[in-house]
Amino acid sequence: MSEQVKYDAPTVEQEIEVISTYHLEEAASHVVPKGGFDYMAGGSGKEFTLKRNDSAWDKKGILPRVLANVENPDTSTSIFEHDLKVPFIMAPIAAHGLAHATKEAGTARGISEFGGTIMSISAYSGATFEEIDKGLNGNPRWFQIYMSKDEEMNKNILDEAKQDGATAIILTADATLSGNRERDITNKFVYPFGMPIVSRYLTGSGENMSLNNIYAQSKQKIEPSDVKFIAEYSGLPVFVKGIQTPEDALLAIGAGASGVWVSNHGGRQLDNAPGSFETLEAISKAVAGQVPIVFDSGVRRGEHIFKALASGADIIAVGRPVLFGLALGGYKGVKSVLEYFETDLKRVMQLAGTQTIEDVKNAQLFDMK
Amino acid sequence: MSEQVKYDAPTVEQEIEVISTYHLEEAASHVVPKGGFDYMAGGSGKEFTLKRNDSAWDKKGILPRVLANVENPDTSTSIFEHDLKVPFIMAPIAAHGLAHATKEAGTARGISEFGGTIMSISAYSGATFEEIDKGLNGNPRWFQIYMSKDEEMNKNILDEAKQDGATAIILTADATLSGNRERDITNKFVYPFGMPIVSRYLTGSGENMSLNNIYAQSKQKIEPSDVKFIAEYSGLPVFVKGIQTPEDALLAIGAGASGVWVSNHGGRQLDNAPGSFETLEAISKAVAGQVPIVFDSGVRRGEHIFKALASGADIIAVGRPVLFGLALGGYKGVKSVLEYFETDLKRVMQLAGTQTIEDVKNAQLFDMK
Amino acid sequence: MSEQVKYDAPTVEQEIEVISTYHLEEAASHVVPKGGFDYMAGGSGKEFTLKRNDSAWDKKGILPRVLANVENPDTSTSIFEHDLKVPFIMAPIAAHGLAHATKEAGTARGISEFGGTIMSISAYSGATFEEIDKGLNGNPRWFQIYMSKDEEMNKNILDEAKQDGATAIILTADATLSGNRERDITNKFVYPFGMPIVSRYLTGSGENMSLNNIYAQSKQKIEPSDVKFIAEYSGLPVFVKGIQTPEDALLAIGAGASGVWVSNHGGRQLDNAPGSFETLEAISKAVAGQVPIVFDSGVRRGEHIFKALASGADIIAVGRPVLFGLALGGYKGVKSVLEYFETDLKRVMQLAGTQTIEDVKNAQLFDMK
Amino acid sequence: MSEQVKYDAPTVEQEIEVISTYHLEEAASHVVPKGGFDYMAGGSGKEFTLKRNDSAWDKKGILPRVLANVENPDTSTSIFEHDLKVPFIMAPIAAHGLAHATKEAGTARGISEFGGTIMSISAYSGATFEEIDKGLNGNPRWFQIYMSKDEEMNKNILDEAKQDGATAIILTADATLSGNRERDITNKFVYPFGMPIVSRYLTGSGENMSLNNIYAQSKQKIEPSDVKFIAEYSGLPVFVKGIQTPEDALLAIGAGASGVWVSNHGGRQLDNAPGSFETLEAISKAVAGQVPIVFDSGVRRGEHIFKALASGADIIAVGRPVLFGLALGGYKGVKSVLEYFETDLKRVMQLAGTQTIEDVKNAQLFDMK
Repeated sequence: MSEQVKYDAPTVEQEIEVISTYHLEEAASHVVPKGGFDYMAGGSGKEFTLKRNDSAWDKKGILPRVLANVENPDTSTSIFEHDLKVPFIMAPIAAHGLAHATKEAGTARGISEFGGTIMSISAYSGATFEEIDKGLNGNPRWFQIYMSKDEEMNKNILDEAKQDGATAIILTADATLSGNRERDITNKFVYPFGMPIVSRYLTGSGENMSLNNIYAQSKQKIEPSDVKFIAEYSGLPVFVKGIQTPEDALLAIGAGASGVWVSNHGGRQLDNAPGSFETLEAISKAVAGQVPIVFDSGVRRGEHIFKALASGADIIAVGRPVLFGLALGGYKGVKSVLEYFETDLKRVMQLAGTQTIEDVKNAQLFDMK
Repeated sequence: MSEQVKYDAPTVEQEIEVISTYHLEEAASHVVPKGGFDYMAGGSGKEFTLKRNDSAWDKKGILPRVLANVENPDTSTSIFEHDLKVPFIMAPIAAHGLAHATKEAGTARGISEFGGTIMSISAYSGATFEEIDKGLNGNPRWFQIYMSKDEEMNKNILDEAKQDGATAIILTADATLSGNRERDITNKFVYPFGMPIVSRYLTGSGENMSLNNIYAQSKQKIEPSDVKFIAEYSGLPVFVKGIQTPEDALLAIGAGASGVWVSNHGGRQLDNAPGSFETLEAISKAVAGQVPIVFDSGVRRGEHIFKALASGADIIAVGRPVLFGLALGGYKGVKSVLEYFETDLKRVMQLAGTQTIEDVKNAQLFDMK
Repeated sequence: MSEQVKYDAPTVEQEIEVISTYHLEEAASHVVPKGGFDYMAGGSGKEFTLKRNDSAWDKKGILPRVLANVENPDTSTSIFEHDLKVPFIMAPIAAHGLAHATKEAGTARGISEFGGTIMSISAYSGATFEEIDKGLNGNPRWFQIYMSKDEEMNKNILDEAKQDGATAIILTADATLSGNRERDITNKFVYPFGMPIVSRYLTGSGENMSLNNIYAQSKQKIEPSDVKFIAEYSGLPVFVKGIQTPEDALLAIGAGASGVWVSNHGGRQLDNAPGSFETLEAISKAVAGQVPIVFDSGVRRGEHIFKALASGADIIAVGRPVLFGLALGGYKGVKSVLEYFETDLKRVMQLAGTQTIEDVKNAQLFDMK
Repeated sequence: MSEQVKYDAPTVEQEIEVISTYHLEEAASHVVPKGGFDYMAGGSGKEFTLKRNDSAWDKKGILPRVLANVENPDTSTSIFEHDLKVPFIMAPIAAHGLAHATKEAGTARGISEFGGTIMSISAYSGATFEEIDKGLNGNPRWFQIYMSKDEEMNKNILDEAKQDGATAIILTADATLSGNRERDITNKFVYPFGMPIVSRYLTGSGENMSLNNIYAQSKQKIEPSDVKFIAEYSGLPVFVKGIQTPEDALLAIGAGASGVWVSNHGGRQLDNAPGSFETLEAISKAVAGQVPIVFDSGVRRGEHIFKALASGADIIAVGRPVLFGLALGGYKGVKSVLEYFETDLKRVMQLAGTQTIEDVKNAQLFDMK
């Protein structure tokens, strides 16, 4: 299994020009080792859902609005105790070290320098809490847990995350085993480094282990009582991540979730699922404002952020584009990508006649037949 | 007509890594002689229906479900007297010898080593019942009949199938003549070996004969009374295979069928027909549980099995992918393919929040607009 | 304008193997001079309607039917006084001499040798009535008129067509000027030979004239009174050709038409029109059996004939595929193409469980969403 | 920023053969410097809306009509005090000098020689009013304003436009900042010459400035009161340009607009907007004849003009194709393009059975599913 002798992650740190995040993906494919790139960029099965996460956006159009009295739109919003300058945050993603030698610490620093947003720290981080902390420099963070089969381990991890300053816990509920990652199977991909946060419950550090192997050692049977346990033990708001149906949104809330995280794991888990955006509106109607909704999977443009907000999301999480920025420019690249999203969203808001995030939420989308 | 002097079927026996069955088809095209491969892989006309059998799956999405308390899903089910470990069986396919020198005996052995499923034996088998028996090693089997114009021949064949241990008869009702197989016409394809089971009513053994020729010598006028005859004469449950409408499903049941076999013959008969999966739901509603439904045509992934079950099928029959496995690895390849389907189905069940086949049958699919 | 010095039409006479008529088109493109081929095969504008004539068939599926007691289906039908062995006839097409040196006489002979169908003779024929007669050998014929601005000319042409034995007149109502034939404009296409039937009212013989020029010299203002005039003067049943709406079908009948000819001129006139097949069902409902309906534009397969009949057409006219057969094999090629359609239709009828043309007309098509 | 040392605009003046305007675009790409061509031809973002402006036409078909008594259709119409020989006019476009050395004066001369239509003069013209006047030779003109932040500047510009003979003012309301022009960003495009009309309120002449920069110096906060101001100050009818919703159409009328200009700025502003044609019908219903509707964005064929008229537009504005004609043939090329549209529209009118523009407006389109 340990075929990877050395993994040469990029090390360059520079601001990057972001013409589009699709260009970033193309560019990143040239600097990131193939196994790592395919792991980051790929989806499951025939990548139907991965592609649908993108094409689903085209099912709704944004209507240009005029005479709307808009100038220099205001992208600020808030969630829980956090005032944000933008309605998007960093999605939890494993193993940033595949993209850049600075790992999650690089991402954290880019986020910190951009400011006014939140970093989600994955339990499958290749960096330690301490390393990430340095980069994050006091900026807010949420912690994404992959549960162990051992309750004590879960308590231990939660303790540490809380001590690290996490202000919410994201329970990954859609990854009870690995999706059918055909690219990784073809590449015989294994992680080239360990995962210090979850290694406590793994046989092995994570290094030279496949995703399948790691998932198999994690808890598969995720139940409503797990939500309750995390909420009560940590005393923190809990998001259930991986919601794609109104039924599960209500189930999560009933189990004690303080937030619903609409996601299909970036098209990496159940292939043949609809595009994540296609599921948002019905979920939003069912949730009916009881708790905030975070949305991810397929966000690549300001238009996408706009559409998700207009369809009921409160906060949008962006993932892969930030990692591609990390690969291309380290923390400076991360900052460039976040700035791109901010600029692009502002432009869309202006042209759609929306001055505030509240206006965006009230915008009517056009049904593209 | 007898242009084929020698047909070099593959002979290798080895386990194969199944990344996807689409990869298998590609790989098989390199080891199987062109005429044989095109016969196996091809469809009729412009192959609209062949392709639609695949694209029709995309019309329904599977919804990821979370907090569902699922772990290690149970794929077992049963039909008639048979308890199966998986809800899929081997579809009846002619002339396995095109794929591998061990012919149907190789397929049978692979099925036997996988265990817990059923082999459908085609009347157009290139192997004898005796040869197949050795491979099958006591595992259950159903027999697919192509009727002769001569009633005595039909009795004779049924006697033999029953004596061989068949526990059900599959009446092929959708192949009263050959579809418009443009690939075969282009290749001037003829079978390179005889068909011992039906040769008794052919002029010739089957060797060096075209499909058109063989079909022309079989019975074309299939009527409800044929169902009744087979059921009464054999005393076995009869499936009518090739059902694509609610009307014909009810007609078959009225004629004495104990099961409905939804199929468009893998897109090999009437081109311009809808995808087989598109027809399933309406048929299932009409059948309303009176008899079990077997589904085939286009099944290539665990997701497909899931969707067919969720749309009313009780048992799914897989065909070409198993033959491609046979071509690539003999009986070991067959076993690898069956294991792939089992693994893939389990993964889908887990991610869709379904613990049992009954749960799958009750799952709601997402209408992909 | 007279850039074409010599036009080398094919001369070979041979039976041809028709795998599909799409293959024929490809093959014909290699033996017919480019200007002539593009004229025959091309459509107007961006060829949206030309392509849609083909893709429109995919909007309806044919349902396989089983246990239908069908054997050796009967394709015979009749229209007016003619008993036909097949429900398809030859569509009127100009200038067969572009395809083959034997011109319309070659087509006529192929039709005659096939037998049991009708030839439509275009007023833009490159052959004389006498030449066509020899090939047609007593087989039935209809005459398609392009009206002159001069009523006496029209009478003269009708007299001659009637004397030649035409049993119906087809009034071309959709070609009051030339469609936007971008291929012909690019090729600077002019007819390489004269048109003896209409040359009486042209300035010139037709040779070295563009379609635009010829149309401009024909009558543009076609009115209901023209239908009445032709019907009364000729005493023959009149089809109005080019109907694409229920309104025009009823208008034509009200004006004295004995038949409605649904056609968009093979996608050669108004581009951006729907596929001809898309318009058929509504027209058929409006006509409600008052007069027979002939359908053309886009017919390439037995499945197409089946679908048109099942959607309300009584007779299907095939055009370009016959010309491609003429190009590839002269009269023998024409016969091969007609046989192909007969064989293909029979196969479809068998697999769709229809014994007679009446059964086909009653068949339910499947709505392909 | 000032990387462009010299911009070699085409200078040739010749009549051009217009087979289709798509061919023109292709041909223009070979003679216009890349930066200029991409600026003219490109759209924003992933150019979804740019492409949709074209593909949206395919959602409605034009029905061929027969026996309609049509001959030599009449394309004349009128708007306000102007009698036009065609229902299409020149859309306002910036910087014609990118296409041809004669700049807007060349376009104006082509329009003048064609006659019977209206030129829209953009405030971002590279030519002065005086230069344009010479070409326009007394033909009617409308003036498109990009507002300054300085009200006195706006008055000054309006004074000058009125003095120049503008009979209507077009208020650009959809370009309060620049769309996300990825091609221009990639090319680092800046205008190679100044803009004499708006340079009075720019820091700089416009030369070597990016569109982003220029827009930033223009007024962003466009309000209903701006419509009222322009109407009252100029005493001229005002169009609000950039309307894509019924709501904004009514808002504009309420604010004093004398016309609604349906446009999405040629797909250059808000990407992910629907095709402009998709929005027309609902707007037309809402406006209900209160004021005339001008339509632009995506018009490339006579069929498009027909469809827009049949969907509620009164006047169609054509833009890029005219610029491509300018690039290929100067004022003579402009005239050739206008003649093409006239010829193509007449042909479509004839084949659709419509004698007058009023008939076209009453034509029923076919819903292409």
